Amino acid sequence: MSGQTTNLAAVVHGPNDLRMEEIAVPVPGEGGKTGVHKCCCRSGRWGSAGSDIKYWRDGRCGRFRLTSPMVIGHEASGTVVGVGPGVLHLKLGDRVAIEPGVPCRKCQYCKSGRYNLCPDIVFCATPPGDGNMCRYYIHPADFCFRLPDCVSLDEGALLEPLAVAIHSCRKGDVTSGDSVLVCGAGPIGILTMLVARRLGAEKIVITDVDIQRLEFAASLGASTLLVQSQTQIELCTGITDLLQGRPRSVFECSGVDTNLHLAIDVVAPGGVVVMVGRGSSDLKLPVFQITSKEVQIKGVFRYSNCYRAALNMVLSMPDTNIKQLITHRFPLEGAIKAFEMASGRNNGAIKVVVQCDAITD
Amino acid sequence: MSGQTTNLAAVVHGPNDLRMEEIAVPVPGEGGKTGVHKCCCRSGRWGSAGSDIKYWRDGRCGRFRLTSPMVIGHEASGTVVGVGPGVLHLKLGDRVAIEPGVPCRKCQYCKSGRYNLCPDIVFCATPPGDGNMCRYYIHPADFCFRLPDCVSLDEGALLEPLAVAIHSCRKGDVTSGDSVLVCGAGPIGILTMLVARRLGAEKIVITDVDIQRLEFAASLGASTLLVQSQTQIELCTGITDLLQGRPRSVFECSGVDTNLHLAIDVVAPGGVVVMVGRGSSDLKLPVFQITSKEVQIKGVFRYSNCYRAALNMVLSMPDTNIKQLITHRFPLEGAIKAFEMASGRNNGAIKVVVQCDAITD
Amino acid sequence: MSGQTTNLAAVVHGPNDLRMEEIAVPVPGEGGKTGVHKCCCRSGRWGSAGSDIKYWRDGRCGRFRLTSPMVIGHEASGTVVGVGPGVLHLKLGDRVAIEPGVPCRKCQYCKSGRYNLCPDIVFCATPPGDGNMCRYYIHPADFCFRLPDCVSLDEGALLEPLAVAIHSCRKGDVTSGDSVLVCGAGPIGILTMLVARRLGAEKIVITDVDIQRLEFAASLGASTLLVQSQTQIELCTGITDLLQGRPRSVFECSGVDTNLHLAIDVVAPGGVVVMVGRGSSDLKLPVFQITSKEVQIKGVFRYSNCYRAALNMVLSMPDTNIKQLITHRFPLEGAIKAFEMASGRNNGAIKVVVQCDAITD
Amino acid sequence: MSGQTTNLAAVVHGPNDLRMEEIAVPVPGEGGKTGVHKCCCRSGRWGSAGSDIKYWRDGRCGRFRLTSPMVIGHEASGTVVGVGPGVLHLKLGDRVAIEPGVPCRKCQYCKSGRYNLCPDIVFCATPPGDGNMCRYYIHPADFCFRLPDCVSLDEGALLEPLAVAIHSCRKGDVTSGDSVLVCGAGPIGILTMLVARRLGAEKIVITDVDIQRLEFAASLGASTLLVQSQTQIELCTGITDLLQGRPRSVFECSGVDTNLHLAIDVVAPGGVVVMVGRGSSDLKLPVFQITSKEVQIKGVFRYSNCYRAALNMVLSMPDTNIKQLITHRFPLEGAIKAFEMASGRNNGAIKVVVQCDAITD
Repeated sequence: MSGQTTNLAAVVHGPNDLRMEEIAVPVPGEGGKTGVHKCCCRSGRWGSAGSDIKYWRDGRCGRFRLTSPMVIGHEASGTVVGVGPGVLHLKLGDRVAIEPGVPCRKCQYCKSGRYNLCPDIVFCATPPGDGNMCRYYIHPADFCFRLPDCVSLDEGALLEPLAVAIHSCRKGDVTSGDSVLVCGAGPIGILTMLVARRLGAEKIVITDVDIQRLEFAASLGASTLLVQSQTQIELCTGITDLLQGRPRSVFECSGVDTNLHLAIDVVAPGGVVVMVGRGSSDLKLPVFQITSKEVQIKGVFRYSNCYRAALNMVLSMPDTNIKQLITHRFPLEGAIKAFEMASGRNNGAIKVVVQCDAITD
Repeated sequence: MSGQTTNLAAVVHGPNDLRMEEIAVPVPGEGGKTGVHKCCCRSGRWGSAGSDIKYWRDGRCGRFRLTSPMVIGHEASGTVVGVGPGVLHLKLGDRVAIEPGVPCRKCQYCKSGRYNLCPDIVFCATPPGDGNMCRYYIHPADFCFRLPDCVSLDEGALLEPLAVAIHSCRKGDVTSGDSVLVCGAGPIGILTMLVARRLGAEKIVITDVDIQRLEFAASLGASTLLVQSQTQIELCTGITDLLQGRPRSVFECSGVDTNLHLAIDVVAPGGVVVMVGRGSSDLKLPVFQITSKEVQIKGVFRYSNCYRAALNMVLSMPDTNIKQLITHRFPLEGAIKAFEMASGRNNGAIKVVVQCDAITD
Repeated sequence: MSGQTTNLAAVVHGPNDLRMEEIAVPVPGEGGKTGVHKCCCRSGRWGSAGSDIKYWRDGRCGRFRLTSPMVIGHEASGTVVGVGPGVLHLKLGDRVAIEPGVPCRKCQYCKSGRYNLCPDIVFCATPPGDGNMCRYYIHPADFCFRLPDCVSLDEGALLEPLAVAIHSCRKGDVTSGDSVLVCGAGPIGILTMLVARRLGAEKIVITDVDIQRLEFAASLGASTLLVQSQTQIELCTGITDLLQGRPRSVFECSGVDTNLHLAIDVVAPGGVVVMVGRGSSDLKLPVFQITSKEVQIKGVFRYSNCYRAALNMVLSMPDTNIKQLITHRFPLEGAIKAFEMASGRNNGAIKVVVQCDAITD
Repeated sequence: MSGQTTNLAAVVHGPNDLRMEEIAVPVPGEGGKTGVHKCCCRSGRWGSAGSDIKYWRDGRCGRFRLTSPMVIGHEASGTVVGVGPGVLHLKLGDRVAIEPGVPCRKCQYCKSGRYNLCPDIVFCATPPGDGNMCRYYIHPADFCFRLPDCVSLDEGALLEPLAVAIHSCRKGDVTSGDSVLVCGAGPIGILTMLVARRLGAEKIVITDVDIQRLEFAASLGASTLLVQSQTQIELCTGITDLLQGRPRSVFECSGVDTNLHLAIDVVAPGGVVVMVGRGSSDLKLPVFQITSKEVQIKGVFRYSNCYRAALNMVLSMPDTNIKQLITHRFPLEGAIKAFEMASGRNNGAIKVVVQCDAITD
């Protein structure tokens, strides 16, 4: 760490105002969230994520609103370049994935295993918390997961959306023999599909309006349904035809308003609808179906206790390489271009990765 | 049974067309749902229930529609006057509560413990199934629960709505230390409140627009909130003030459309909203709250495996006499008057009971 | 069915007294368990199972004891040759897997989804219930699962032990990222290993005293540990070395007494030990470990609601062909030889199959 | 705090060697477990607990062994006399109950809600951690629960064993309609009985060898069975007669070796046996019953997330005053006498309380 004087960061100042700036180089053991052993990473990779894009474009995401300049980025991996006192499980040179949300560790949610609901959680790139798309970043060591040699920095950064998918599938009680519908074939939808299959789901249909995304999903083994101008009833029929019955679990990963209604319509009696995508604030939902079929609707907010499982899943699925999601790659200096690519339509982009060092590394 | 030639029944022929008619006297061992040991009851009591009233007034309830004359009534108890071959746990003269839904026993829902979702369930007074508001009624013996001497026929009939309340509280995961909101102080709301308290809920608020109902609920120990012209925000504040925090479980028992929105607004992060009342078909719901608070919404449709627990609960709550819910009483011949009373407003009616024999019994 | 006059059956009369005899040809719609729609199968395959072998050798298994001659066999598949009135989902010529236990459908266990605990269940080849190792066999249609064209009769018969493995893994809460120990590499142990992997387990060690069995398990992807003369402590160390930590779930499938003690010793704090093998009646167990690590020990008895999932699993695991377990094959007439082979040691036998028709079919 | 110069403590130096000594007065914000907001209490009450007595008598308890002098005591309440920086929910003069185990907050157990299994937990009076039977004691503020005015310091100290009982009943899945057996009528057994009833258990039998304890339990509403010279079979019959059936949940709170065998024998098929008492290290258990009845055995080690529920339970059970358990009371200076009383037999002692200030307070 000694001698480092520059720390390039991607800082969002407001809607469509992302700037590359030098910020202070952090030192483990100083400042930040007190009382927790820290390590400092030289960041390696960041994945482009929906919320990052929203802050960049709109200066807000859901109930959170940008009030001052904020470093962007929360899907990250890196290499340890400094450890504070008391850090035992990491050493200089270790490559790590960074779980971006650090909870208070003291409230009832933290103590009962649902730290994603901690009201005082500090989450990378959620105002007022800075993100980690910068060269040097400091983080509590227990939220840094050491990557074995066979797991790349790319995969380390992708553990973040994979953790979302695992949390969602746990909520959806996916188990052996299940038949599953995933709405939306973006990165979260595709990862949810892969995790559901890994957990025993036997039949999976994934839907989207984008045929390129569906072709990618199909190449990973999913049955696909292209959403065009069908009626709600036609969509239900299409799904149940492909699944030879109603799905027991539905994952709404698209954020498209009509999909939540569809999910409740098509799910089997006694089934579960997991809301992963946010959608608009007020939606018309068929409540009579919720009661008469005893549907469970479960909202999902980030994740807790999923990074270890995500890492294990990467280790045990050599055949299903999640790196295939990465379609584009930019250096840190080109972060703005990366955001433009990630937010574009019909450009074939699934996951755009920004990397700290030269593309050749 | 021998010698019985008349069987007076309350038969609904269409909207507002309830007639007292003689129907055939059933004989155990003949007809009906095959292959199940039967017993025949001389009915004793029926409670007035919301769905019965809807069939009487509108000729329909939810997705079910009257297509031919149907005997009404599904909250019933009676005395065994005949048993078919193979019935071992009942004998002539036993008083029983009648669980009104008889499932197919063969589908995946029946085999996995959720027989309330059986697509072939035959449920009393749900078209095309006849109800049991008639003097003699035949039913599978394993859905007849023998009442100990200390449990009255009145209480036997009330096991039906009590089973709904138990099923709802199980869905709501009510446990020790919980704080609970119940929307609606009708019979189901009040029983839900009593069951939640029995299962360990520490703080309970119940809401309604009817001050008489709230006074009754208060007399049973609940904190109450009268819904008048408050805004949604004022209602939330009123509830959290009374509970000293947000409720972890909310039971929507009112069927009032705005209450489901309120439930999602006010529930604690990580909490559960149980939909007991049906409401309209399409409702605007705050989906962003569902995800950002990880709310679970659980629809409830009747119940399964709750009658035994309901009976045990009556036995163990001598202090909380559910008979207090009974405000009016009519003979079978006066069933039409009973329905008028039960469907009236501001007449102090909570539960109206029809009884087979003279009121004096 | 018409014209069938002979029905060859393997009948056990007492210890080591298995005879091939002609028994009556059953007719759907007559006799048997009343009130349930029946179908009649021409049996196709039976797997050799531990309990069958015990009845053959000892005339007893666990608490059940042979009191009169009994047809043996309970892992079976066949072809429908007759259907009783009311059977809708099967037709002549369908190939089916036979779930061998038929519960009463009326007790609290049946109604709550745990029909394997039904005190009145009639289970093939559990006294006094006859098994199905005969040419023609009659069974309730809802316990016959139609096999798609791509699933063979062999696989149909193997759904039975696969159902045991699925039930066990459900009890063990196996999910993504788990590390698992399976004691015993017999058919149940190997299937449990395959199911655990299918449900997301990332690291699995399987142990046995038989090196041939372990080699077979290794060929299916498991890490293996040969049990020889190691101490309990050495075994623990060996297991945790292979898993890089303690297992969260342990499946005791060997029936070897010392393995249950080992399971409790080695399982991680907060972990689960599932007892699939029976073992002796009274075993010394380290109870202090059970409390200080908050271990859960869960007994497993057969299964409920697992055949559908087992069939789906076969459909979705083309790469993990469970047919590989079949090492030997005999015609019905050679059933006695099949039993001798299945009960032998060090003969390479994993699963021995008896088939109704000529071996060439 | 300023000016306090003496801090009397009960320090155990070895078997039967408890000494009253002056130790340092702690100051919030200094030393101890770092990084957590602290408060300092003037202790008010301590309950006598089994593990305290074991350290005093034997210098060890289970796998923990005294290696240097240790302040005793872990069931405590007190009054806040100092708060460190950052403590927001407590102020000087607040009375609090002290949850005695402080986990690392960083391991997988802490993060997933099972912090009682944290390998680095520091627990009062478990070597090498000092207990809190001293006049001034410092503790992380989030493990101090403010007592409302209506809850006494006595009750505050009793929250600790009440938390054990709540954790046990949660493990036992006690719910409405359950029938329950509790083995052992010591403080934990009696509190488990009270909590089980509060959570909906309808029929409860409690057993003991001490008739005085049973009389006390009976005065709180339990059915009782005196264990004398009955055979195991006679005990089973006695229990099932009282419960009119087998218990679905059994709580072994006695630590008596034979009771765990009895628990497995008598529990209903599909039932749960919770091990609260530790017993000897190796016990003979009827494993065949565990599988054939699908029994679950669940070890219990302390508790997590139970103090809030315990406090709420005290607030909502005015009729079931847990203070009734307190039979004797000593000043801090008389701690040795308190231990002698608490460990005696047949002296009527249930819970012996030591109090910091004069008995008259």
